[in-house]
Amino acid sequence: MFTLKNIDGGVCAATGFYADGIAIGLKKEGALDIAFIYSDSLCVNASVFTTNKMTAAPIRHFRQKENFQGNFVLINSKNANAMTGPAGIKDIDEVLFRVQEAFPQIQNPVMSSTGVIGVRLPKAKIIEGALNFDLTHRDGVSASEAIMTTDTFSKRIAFEVTLENGTSFCIGAMAKGAGMINPAMATMLCFITTDALVDKATMQGILDECTRTTFNAASVDGDTSTNDTVLVMANGQSGAFDADAFKEALWTIMLFLAKEMVRDGEGATKLVTYKVTGATDDHEAEVAAKALSNSLLVKTALFGQDPNWGRIASTVGASGVMCDEETLSIWFDDVCVYQKGDLLFDEKLEPFAAAVMQKPAFTIHCDIGQGEGNFIAYGCDLGHEYVKINADYRT
Amino acid sequence: MFTLKNIDGGVCAATGFYADGIAIGLKKEGALDIAFIYSDSLCVNASVFTTNKMTAAPIRHFRQKENFQGNFVLINSKNANAMTGPAGIKDIDEVLFRVQEAFPQIQNPVMSSTGVIGVRLPKAKIIEGALNFDLTHRDGVSASEAIMTTDTFSKRIAFEVTLENGTSFCIGAMAKGAGMINPAMATMLCFITTDALVDKATMQGILDECTRTTFNAASVDGDTSTNDTVLVMANGQSGAFDADAFKEALWTIMLFLAKEMVRDGEGATKLVTYKVTGATDDHEAEVAAKALSNSLLVKTALFGQDPNWGRIASTVGASGVMCDEETLSIWFDDVCVYQKGDLLFDEKLEPFAAAVMQKPAFTIHCDIGQGEGNFIAYGCDLGHEYVKINADYRT
Repeated sequence: MFTLKNIDGGVCAATGFYADGIAIGLKKEGALDIAFIYSDSLCVNASVFTTNKMTAAPIRHFRQKENFQGNFVLINSKNANAMTGPAGIKDIDEVLFRVQEAFPQIQNPVMSSTGVIGVRLPKAKIIEGALNFDLTHRDGVSASEAIMTTDTFSKRIAFEVTLENGTSFCIGAMAKGAGMINPAMATMLCFITTDALVDKATMQGILDECTRTTFNAASVDGDTSTNDTVLVMANGQSGAFDADAFKEALWTIMLFLAKEMVRDGEGATKLVTYKVTGATDDHEAEVAAKALSNSLLVKTALFGQDPNWGRIASTVGASGVMCDEETLSIWFDDVCVYQKGDLLFDEKLEPFAAAVMQKPAFTIHCDIGQGEGNFIAYGCDLGHEYVKINADYRT
Repeated sequence: MFTLKNIDGGVCAATGFYADGIAIGLKKEGALDIAFIYSDSLCVNASVFTTNKMTAAPIRHFRQKENFQGNFVLINSKNANAMTGPAGIKDIDEVLFRVQEAFPQIQNPVMSSTGVIGVRLPKAKIIEGALNFDLTHRDGVSASEAIMTTDTFSKRIAFEVTLENGTSFCIGAMAKGAGMINPAMATMLCFITTDALVDKATMQGILDECTRTTFNAASVDGDTSTNDTVLVMANGQSGAFDADAFKEALWTIMLFLAKEMVRDGEGATKLVTYKVTGATDDHEAEVAAKALSNSLLVKTALFGQDPNWGRIASTVGASGVMCDEETLSIWFDDVCVYQKGDLLFDEKLEPFAAAVMQKPAFTIHCDIGQGEGNFIAYGCDLGHEYVKINADYRT
């Protein structure tokens, strides 16, 4: 038995962690644009990165260090440092060398970036800015704001986890999302800090397990970024740990942030949960659920608040999973619009289905009627705002 | 040796074929909404249908007849007769029975439908309308207009093929596209008629071969319809045939119609050719090319006329094909913006790249630098009009 208690502080909630965000002029109008996370003792870490083969420089840089303990992450927005080749990695080395020079307490620092692809890092600006960091600040709010790109709100959460024996640890997180969000891997940037006393292998195992049903189940646009990163840092300062409790807390945090990211997807007005049951196996359920969350025709129907269930059926059929119109059933929340060949949708039912579509969050449930496979995916609608944001992203 | 000569007439170009489109009130404002194609002698046929497992009733009905010779196709727009179960097939039988009763010269008629999914066919209206068909009409223009849904222009083409021995045959076609257009199969409706003297097996083989690089290479929105159909009818009346000439004519017709469909994609303002070279094999090239033509971020950048080459690179990387930023090169028409790790894109180059993006049709070429695999795919941009059309398609 254990209890989770929601607390403030984000990535600074756990003992020994510090963070802040400052403005150095990468974003317009003095918005916060670089952040740090610092722990006053060394951390083990677990990580999940993008499966995009054009992996960004910060991820390549991180992977060169494999199996290190460190205590500092520098994060910048507006520039992804992707497609920048060996020079991009050298840029990171230079930035981090200068930061370590100024702050000798920093060990094995790493970097994380998000923004435009294919432009060299504004090194001088970032170094100059980072020298102004105050490592005694514990401002999880500013840190979470500094890593935003097209996000419209910052995303953070923290829990205090109390174990049966009375000991407790904290786990906190921040994330950014908005675009290039695709369910095929851990997308976006997410930083999780904890003072739990956990070894690297255990933590990596738990992170991998949680990723599939949280970040990997979330989609904004089906596009897979070059920079996706989930990084968990554990400094052990609480002395407490329990694998089940840690997993529950981590999963809850990751699911919350995944859903927040979808809710704040570029131009999104709706958070839709795609629940697929009755597939031949869990993998087929996942394929169907992700096909739904990525279908342009489904997404635009959501935007139009149109209970166009035919597009749901067509998308399941097109996804390649075993299915048949005589065994398929479809619900909008608890309104069944199609049941195993019965065209239930008529003028009487339409207002009920339409009322569901008008909600800011609802569930589309497809029972495929072929087996026991289940999966839940999270998606949003696609409206004019998405087109507007992405038609002139660079400007 | 053989020559292809572009001629008028669409599906009526070949000897013995008749067609027309009439208005029966399925569409608003008296627009043409049902069409027929009739041959005054029996035809062998070849076909490619959707791979969507929620196959529409007309396709299931067609497949029940396997290996038949017929001479009549009835086509309606506004209603897809999909997700309508066994009742949907009975509706077709009833419609065609009544049509055959009125026109005894019709043998083995089939039906094809396009429109909203999940609504029973307006049988009575269609029967009443079809009884007004005049099977002596040769109006390929009206027929091609009657099958349009969100298409903004009708699509047809015909060739006279003259062989080395002086004999000749004709091959004509019409198609509709606009939405639910996905490169994973022959999408949309396309009807091709010919008086070439060809057997079913030969024609099916040639059709399958041509499909991969034409309709299967075209994408509007990555959504796969329940009704996609390509049907070729050959009545043999010319007495002439040559496999190479037939294939060349068929491929030219199918590529033309595929590109026309993309150019007229819902809300599209641009026709973009994605040329992928240097993949490890042709299949990997196809995967990368189709990933590009389906990426929302690429499509919205096209709409914004933004030469955001980083999204091209990221999409290739995310597609899963073997690739590396050190071997990749990217061109917009003949403007090279990224070459094997060199960030060529700067303020001097940007106006040249931007000028390409402003053209109504251009080529994005990615050389992956890994092998000899090639593929060309066709896609369009995604703008506000797509969102508008699909947010309230049913109304």
